[in-house]
Amino acid sequence: MTSRRGPTLMAREIAEIPAVVERTLRDGAADLDDVARAIARRAPRFVLIAARGTSDHAAVYARYLIETTLGIPVGLAAASVTTIYRAPLRWDDVLLIAVSQSGAGPDMAAVVEAARAAGAPTLAITNEPSSALAAAAEMILPLHAGEERAVAATKTYVASLAVVAGLVARLAAPLAGGASWTAAVADLPEELGRTLEVAGAWVRGPGAPCVAELAAADEALVVSRGHNLATALEVALKLKETGRIFADGYSTADLLHGPVAVAGPELPTLAFRPDGPAGVAVDEALAVARRSGTLPWTVGGHEVAGRHHALVVAAGLPEPLTPLAFVLPGFLLAEATARARGRDPDAPPGLTKVTRTR
Amino acid sequence: MTSRRGPTLMAREIAEIPAVVERTLRDGAADLDDVARAIARRAPRFVLIAARGTSDHAAVYARYLIETTLGIPVGLAAASVTTIYRAPLRWDDVLLIAVSQSGAGPDMAAVVEAARAAGAPTLAITNEPSSALAAAAEMILPLHAGEERAVAATKTYVASLAVVAGLVARLAAPLAGGASWTAAVADLPEELGRTLEVAGAWVRGPGAPCVAELAAADEALVVSRGHNLATALEVALKLKETGRIFADGYSTADLLHGPVAVAGPELPTLAFRPDGPAGVAVDEALAVARRSGTLPWTVGGHEVAGRHHALVVAAGLPEPLTPLAFVLPGFLLAEATARARGRDPDAPPGLTKVTRTR
Repeated sequence: MTSRRGPTLMAREIAEIPAVVERTLRDGAADLDDVARAIARRAPRFVLIAARGTSDHAAVYARYLIETTLGIPVGLAAASVTTIYRAPLRWDDVLLIAVSQSGAGPDMAAVVEAARAAGAPTLAITNEPSSALAAAAEMILPLHAGEERAVAATKTYVASLAVVAGLVARLAAPLAGGASWTAAVADLPEELGRTLEVAGAWVRGPGAPCVAELAAADEALVVSRGHNLATALEVALKLKETGRIFADGYSTADLLHGPVAVAGPELPTLAFRPDGPAGVAVDEALAVARRSGTLPWTVGGHEVAGRHHALVVAAGLPEPLTPLAFVLPGFLLAEATARARGRDPDAPPGLTKVTRTR
Repeated sequence: MTSRRGPTLMAREIAEIPAVVERTLRDGAADLDDVARAIARRAPRFVLIAARGTSDHAAVYARYLIETTLGIPVGLAAASVTTIYRAPLRWDDVLLIAVSQSGAGPDMAAVVEAARAAGAPTLAITNEPSSALAAAAEMILPLHAGEERAVAATKTYVASLAVVAGLVARLAAPLAGGASWTAAVADLPEELGRTLEVAGAWVRGPGAPCVAELAAADEALVVSRGHNLATALEVALKLKETGRIFADGYSTADLLHGPVAVAGPELPTLAFRPDGPAGVAVDEALAVARRSGTLPWTVGGHEVAGRHHALVVAAGLPEPLTPLAFVLPGFLLAEATARARGRDPDAPPGLTKVTRTR
């Protein structure tokens, strides 16, 4: 049915992602410089990040990236501590970051207000610089993603990751091996463009059986480790929202502490497997799942080349930046799977573009 | 088949829980006093908690309870930052708590070692005081749960919660309304005994259709908000492990930001709904899910009395302590559901009692 009116909104917004990331990094450069300087000056000892849904997965990426590159301990904020229990937190030396596409959630604004009232630096990362969230925060980093019309957020997710990466790049020591963060981040739009091409051809070609497998199943596992845990969580959520598939995202370490009990040949399993030590840890967990008959599909770098059911993308990106690329085949798979199940990816049941929770 | 050899190990260990909690609080009292004094002296500004699987849900409880009662910001530690990325964290003013039934996970010990080497106070909460984890930590709070033989951890989970509650009770201001934490914690074993009786009768009687509904389904949603998010996550994991049901635990706020798309009349939904503001937030989310035809089962306090499909337990417990009681009907439901599906709750596929991840 969706074919009659051309590509879905979701497909069109996925296609915009390389251009969006370019704009986010270019038009946002001066703001990123300013905010990076302000954060360096305030020298936070801890970071709390408040977010929900897809933005919460951008928060998961930020928590890993900030810890691995800046060494500052990070927690994901529980809004209910403020909005339901009205408990005062000790905000001294804490930087609060809130991530929200719409900036409309009262819970996110309430946490920002509480932190700001206590004197903590607050930063809103949002696609709506005129939102309540942006008004509440001391600092704003806009996503520059343009209006997002699809209910399933895709371009604002990757734009959020780009903002986080752009900010951390300005505060971090050089990448492993001495490579420059600035150059690696500047390469992102081109890498994402290539990734989309390769992934698009794969989903229509060698990856089509993956779509068929997901479409025929009611459940799925999506796993990764480290920075790409965000990718696993986000792709699982997209499968839930658009394909109405009961998909769960897990760290491969957490998978082994219980959920692996549901693994088996009938359960589609999708792994995001970066090159390097995080990828080795993913392999170890997949070896355990294979004992139950699991036949995983893998998206990864050079090290998965030649493997059965594997797609190689963005092999040139440093591992901390691979989440921006790896999620693209995940988005394409979710969109194609939803259509294969006869569902309109632009009309997830029970959801609207803006969700207001407290 | 399990009926031929009497109650399952899991059922027997659930039945031990009130006595275990009494022993945990009594035999652990002096250690709890010491550790509380040591923590008060070190005055941590931030708490990180490392844990996996069921222990990670005890960590979720601790993160809410510490923030709501002590006001200290809490993060859940990502072990991979230490074990995979080998990134040095700035541990100054951080208290690291690791929770592990077995204390055998190399990842948990590695995080404790890194924190301790950096001079941070470290606390292990474990049922194995002679484990690698206990050896690595500066302070230990044993669970006193006795040997846990069932693969699906139940008594060690509630004992972990009791240790957390006992510790926080020693550091916190009086409960809302001025009630004494010490008295409320001391009442726990009796309250849990009553809860088990009521819940056991319910699972065999008015709750039997809930077991049948779960047993007939391959998926389930388990939801709550605030302190009982831990309960929702833990009961979902138990349904996965023992019943091989694809069950997901969610904060009701997060549910509305995407996953509610999978709700519907065919999807069993179980809600833990404490009295008070957290319960009101649960109700608001259930109202949204009901629009998709969801007919939730609810475990809660006085305020759910008389509702369709509701079980009232532990209505006398202060809300921050309800997670110790609410999880008991959840455990009983998971155990009964596994058997109703013809599965042995003591033999979850792919799992062993001790999981070692890095």
